[in-house]
Amino acid sequence: MKVLVLNAGSSSLKYQLLDLATGAVLIRGLCENIGMHDSAHRFDRGFGELKRSEIMNDHHDALQIVINTLLEPDRGPIKSLDEIDAVGHRVVSGGEYFTESTLIDDDVLEKIGICSELAPLHNPPALAAMHACLEMMPGKPEVAVFDTAFFQTLPPRAYVYPLPYEYYTDYKIRKYGAHGTSHRFIARHAAKMLGADVRDLRLITCHLGNGASIAAVDHGVAIDTTMGLTPLDGLMMGTRCGTIDPAVVTRIQTLLGYTPDQMNEIMNKKSGLLGVSGISSDLRTVEEAALAGNERAVLALELYAYFIKRYIGQYFAVMGGADAIVFTAGVGENSEYMRAQCLAGLEPMGIVLDARKNRIRSGERIISEDRSRVKIMVIPTNEELMIARDVEKIMDEVHQAEVTAEMVEETLV
Amino acid sequence: MKVLVLNAGSSSLKYQLLDLATGAVLIRGLCENIGMHDSAHRFDRGFGELKRSEIMNDHHDALQIVINTLLEPDRGPIKSLDEIDAVGHRVVSGGEYFTESTLIDDDVLEKIGICSELAPLHNPPALAAMHACLEMMPGKPEVAVFDTAFFQTLPPRAYVYPLPYEYYTDYKIRKYGAHGTSHRFIARHAAKMLGADVRDLRLITCHLGNGASIAAVDHGVAIDTTMGLTPLDGLMMGTRCGTIDPAVVTRIQTLLGYTPDQMNEIMNKKSGLLGVSGISSDLRTVEEAALAGNERAVLALELYAYFIKRYIGQYFAVMGGADAIVFTAGVGENSEYMRAQCLAGLEPMGIVLDARKNRIRSGERIISEDRSRVKIMVIPTNEELMIARDVEKIMDEVHQAEVTAEMVEETLV
Repeated sequence: MKVLVLNAGSSSLKYQLLDLATGAVLIRGLCENIGMHDSAHRFDRGFGELKRSEIMNDHHDALQIVINTLLEPDRGPIKSLDEIDAVGHRVVSGGEYFTESTLIDDDVLEKIGICSELAPLHNPPALAAMHACLEMMPGKPEVAVFDTAFFQTLPPRAYVYPLPYEYYTDYKIRKYGAHGTSHRFIARHAAKMLGADVRDLRLITCHLGNGASIAAVDHGVAIDTTMGLTPLDGLMMGTRCGTIDPAVVTRIQTLLGYTPDQMNEIMNKKSGLLGVSGISSDLRTVEEAALAGNERAVLALELYAYFIKRYIGQYFAVMGGADAIVFTAGVGENSEYMRAQCLAGLEPMGIVLDARKNRIRSGERIISEDRSRVKIMVIPTNEELMIARDVEKIMDEVHQAEVTAEMVEETLV
Repeated sequence: MKVLVLNAGSSSLKYQLLDLATGAVLIRGLCENIGMHDSAHRFDRGFGELKRSEIMNDHHDALQIVINTLLEPDRGPIKSLDEIDAVGHRVVSGGEYFTESTLIDDDVLEKIGICSELAPLHNPPALAAMHACLEMMPGKPEVAVFDTAFFQTLPPRAYVYPLPYEYYTDYKIRKYGAHGTSHRFIARHAAKMLGADVRDLRLITCHLGNGASIAAVDHGVAIDTTMGLTPLDGLMMGTRCGTIDPAVVTRIQTLLGYTPDQMNEIMNKKSGLLGVSGISSDLRTVEEAALAGNERAVLALELYAYFIKRYIGQYFAVMGGADAIVFTAGVGENSEYMRAQCLAGLEPMGIVLDARKNRIRSGERIISEDRSRVKIMVIPTNEELMIARDVEKIMDEVHQAEVTAEMVEETLV
């Protein structure tokens, strides 16, 4: 089965065409700066990245360019759109409507539209991509895979904020979480690597990229996560502050006269590693500056690690222990320094990193000492593969339902 | 040594006169609704509480009434103000100026004034009480004991917020913590009960009153605490929300058009137990409603316990374990239900509550099972005694310095 996976951002469209029979990525690409004067298309058919300047006024234009590239004579990975079995869309927010991935129909489109208020930068372009698919690939099954769905299992004690209760009932203000597809992927994959059923494990999954979040996955079910109503909460990130005294927000507003939008801009774009170090939002750059003796860079790294350690402690407590801690995404997969920092001193909790294994860079692996009661793992995330697998599962169900319907019809005849 | 301890709130003045030689409280009282039409004085000389309506326009009037009551012929605990050796003042914020209790002089008064911006409701009345003492008891030594001093040992990774760094350097926006005197008292007392030196212990101290906070006291030194720039952060409290996604603040402002002051009012006065249950900010009332089947009351209790459990986990991780968890203040001392809830499921971490001991109400006690690696303790807090002891210590140092100065003088002669 070949699945086209689309991930629409506010001014971007990422895609992959996957062949699930072989697991191969036939092409991956990114339309960037959509609607801007310097819009371009980067893609890789397995022979290195190519970049072409393209005029793309909107996500409809972008999808047209993706399709043209897929079908490019001789060089495109497919000869006809018929070869694509289905399309999978990443959707940032499914609110409280969607607890799992779902086949797209008019009702689903409407609900994703309603959830735009919860993800104003992401849901509208996803909807645009869905409509463009409907137009350019009519009849092709489309599936929505939600970042929030994995966290719809959170119990109320984890998702309700201790604010006036009407804010939840009237304005849907609650914890939704994010990065759900990534946490779900690495939780399942960790279980596979450990030769266990995910339903028998307590996992602390750490997605540490430019955005970063941690989840407590208790016997296969997410019971808590660090991101909240928005992806601002929880860990310190590249440019986001994570959790702070909520009164700091109002204090800064009072001191500097900022509007709510200006505060959001500061907390989302000017804070985190960038804000503390004054150098960069990129952990690698901050690590280099710290090595060169920059004190604010050192502080930024200490803070970053300390936030992670505190949440690992939280989720260790809420699950009464953990079987494994799993790291993924840019920082989680690549920064041996950060992994070592955030786990330092946790040996009394049965969490013992193997310094040598931590240094070796080689895909998925276990990096704890053998005697460590809690396994420490690194697993490269693969949200596109997770999305494609969800699409496959839903298509199988659709097919099964059709077969059953036919059998019923035949019996009736 | 007799010490008068004063605790000035925005419209109140609490006091105790302690005799440190015997440990006796000679009188305790509260001037309430200062500056309002229904101002009154409640006090107890050890024979039950009395209440008198009194006209008190300000803290100066209130102190005059306190002094009159102390000196009341036949019934007052002292005959002359000369019997009072010194006065101890509780001060909510010492900012970054004060790392310990200190004898008050002009410089100290000025710095407490500067810190008013960090505690606008509390530092000004404390200053008023200090000035009233200077006037009514001229020459009497006065000592300031700061709620924040105990937390000045926090490392930068715990007190710097991941915001633009200038907010810290230019506007002093950082974590200061609160309830320091209470955490300090119970940490020391716990060590005494365990027959150990506090410098050999890792303690998680839980002050759960109407305001609530938890601290990690690592070998005698506070290394983290839940309250932040203000007492709003951290745990869910009676009417305060504690930690929430900071973007929730701006979202509510955008949705409802609230100013920063209005948001503060909601987060400080309309949230917490009151906001979620819709019934009361008092845990006892919410517990009763939950027992009667009120679902929002049940949820409020679950949330309250869950916040505590998560922070216990945090501090367990940052200290690499704990030797004891100590509960104090209204909820911490009296709610067996809440202690049991927030510790449920932590047995794999060596935290094992003894259900029977948890039920017995009897002052300071250990309520963990004997096999529990982490001791669980209840210790009634006594901030006034801690303040009086600080006063005594400083008076001893002053006396010692005077003796030394005299000896130097004699030697020189």
